[in-house]
Amino acid sequence: MKIELYIEEKRKLINNALEAMILPLKEQSPLYPAISYALLLPGKRIRPILTLSTYDAIKGNEKDIIPFACAVEMLHTYSLIHDDLPIMDNSDTRRGKPTCHKVYGSDMALLAGDALLSLSFDIVSSSGFKNNFEAQKIIQVIQDFAVASGIRGLVGGQVMDMVTMNDSDIDKETIFYIESMKTGSLIRLAVRIGGILGGISEEEFTALTKFSENFGVSYQVIDDILDVTSTAEILGKDIEKDKKNRKATLVALFGVEKAKEIASDLIYKSIDFLKPFGEKYKVLEDIAILSLGRVK
Amino acid sequence: MKIELYIEEKRKLINNALEAMILPLKEQSPLYPAISYALLLPGKRIRPILTLSTYDAIKGNEKDIIPFACAVEMLHTYSLIHDDLPIMDNSDTRRGKPTCHKVYGSDMALLAGDALLSLSFDIVSSSGFKNNFEAQKIIQVIQDFAVASGIRGLVGGQVMDMVTMNDSDIDKETIFYIESMKTGSLIRLAVRIGGILGGISEEEFTALTKFSENFGVSYQVIDDILDVTSTAEILGKDIEKDKKNRKATLVALFGVEKAKEIASDLIYKSIDFLKPFGEKYKVLEDIAILSLGRVK
Repeated sequence: MKIELYIEEKRKLINNALEAMILPLKEQSPLYPAISYALLLPGKRIRPILTLSTYDAIKGNEKDIIPFACAVEMLHTYSLIHDDLPIMDNSDTRRGKPTCHKVYGSDMALLAGDALLSLSFDIVSSSGFKNNFEAQKIIQVIQDFAVASGIRGLVGGQVMDMVTMNDSDIDKETIFYIESMKTGSLIRLAVRIGGILGGISEEEFTALTKFSENFGVSYQVIDDILDVTSTAEILGKDIEKDKKNRKATLVALFGVEKAKEIASDLIYKSIDFLKPFGEKYKVLEDIAILSLGRVK
Repeated sequence: MKIELYIEEKRKLINNALEAMILPLKEQSPLYPAISYALLLPGKRIRPILTLSTYDAIKGNEKDIIPFACAVEMLHTYSLIHDDLPIMDNSDTRRGKPTCHKVYGSDMALLAGDALLSLSFDIVSSSGFKNNFEAQKIIQVIQDFAVASGIRGLVGGQVMDMVTMNDSDIDKETIFYIESMKTGSLIRLAVRIGGILGGISEEEFTALTKFSENFGVSYQVIDDILDVTSTAEILGKDIEKDKKNRKATLVALFGVEKAKEIASDLIYKSIDFLKPFGEKYKVLEDIAILSLGRVK
């Protein structure tokens, strides 16, 4: 199957699963509209798709992993809602629509984000029993979720982003570090939980981790490039935010062409880690290479 | 030992443990000052103390449960930071000091709260291995953390609080429901995880749950009474916030005297659930009765 079709099919699967998973909240809480709005905006769903394809590569099916993949997307949505708030990046548009706080107010958006963070742990801790995964593996997955979302992951990246604003002395290594926490952490999480639950050797798990770390940074570099080269219509979110917010990016440091080169190098470096396993992780390789096309 | 001395001793233990647990973040993140400030403000630590005493009543020691008790306090602090934000309750004072956002700004305060929520799951999922608790029990504890913090707990209570503001038609049952989510959920969590990790019969666990639910609601009713009868100096936080924010409380509905009666009834109802176990949970009973003294 062509990779574009594969992604389209999995995206639909994830969208349907996300919708079904939050539906019970509809009767339970006045927060449902805000949660549902933010979560079901047309996202690329790259993170949950990575989880599905990693697990599928190992186990040959994906059904049991769907709730975990959705939990990664919930974590991602939580971080978008909070990052977009007026007290943070103050973004008006996301995924082609008004941001959550623009529609529901900052108070409801804050709580919708908080709710999604807890919900992701709720889903991971309750889906383990149902799908007969070993309890030890579930705890390892939860540990990965906690690290990826916290001060060593998403939050840490956001903090570094803020404290390095207006800093003209920032170097490439620091930017890589920020990108790896901001975006790398969830892409890493998405791939790793597929590996943990699938069950693979330590060596293979390390290779998957390295793949995801390099791919994750390149994914953020590509985002930074698009922030200056694309239009708000195509991206579905505010552009030139980085410049406006004086954020430290590789684009600001080296310009677009050099940043493209770095992104490309990272992608090819990332898929090198998968080569020892032959065709097993072909889908992951294809997804990584496809992502480069966004800036071609 | 007199209960006041017991509480004072455990409070010190918790304060020291909290300080030690976040110390590794000091070198790791510019967010450390905001996290440390909010977490180490002089709180009553009632929730972690409940965890210690529940577990101690069952197992005769408390050492292994300390990280879990601290994780409950982190969850509590996260909710205070977010609730106090200008986009929420807009409170200037907490635990006798300026609120986190007053000192570090709303952006850092938001992220400090987010970090503490993830950190609590980080601690719970990593402390299980270290202390040889059964993996199944750890997952059950994580599930309880997720439910208590999310839309069926803290977040749910906060949302209901907001949507019922200015609602003059609100009845006692709805207020009970809000109080049980807002405050009850973490007190329930604190007691229940002591029970889960201690290991008790289902019957005993149900009794502990009922104790914590009734105590939890009464604890919030007492808070609502103090909001109108106490001073900002004694409480260490803004007073008359409920009236200002037109929040639905039992005090607003029935007046102070009737609210005191309800709180007292709830406390005695709560300790009735512990009677079948003789003196085993005497400390929990003492803590519950002591809490009534705050409004005497």
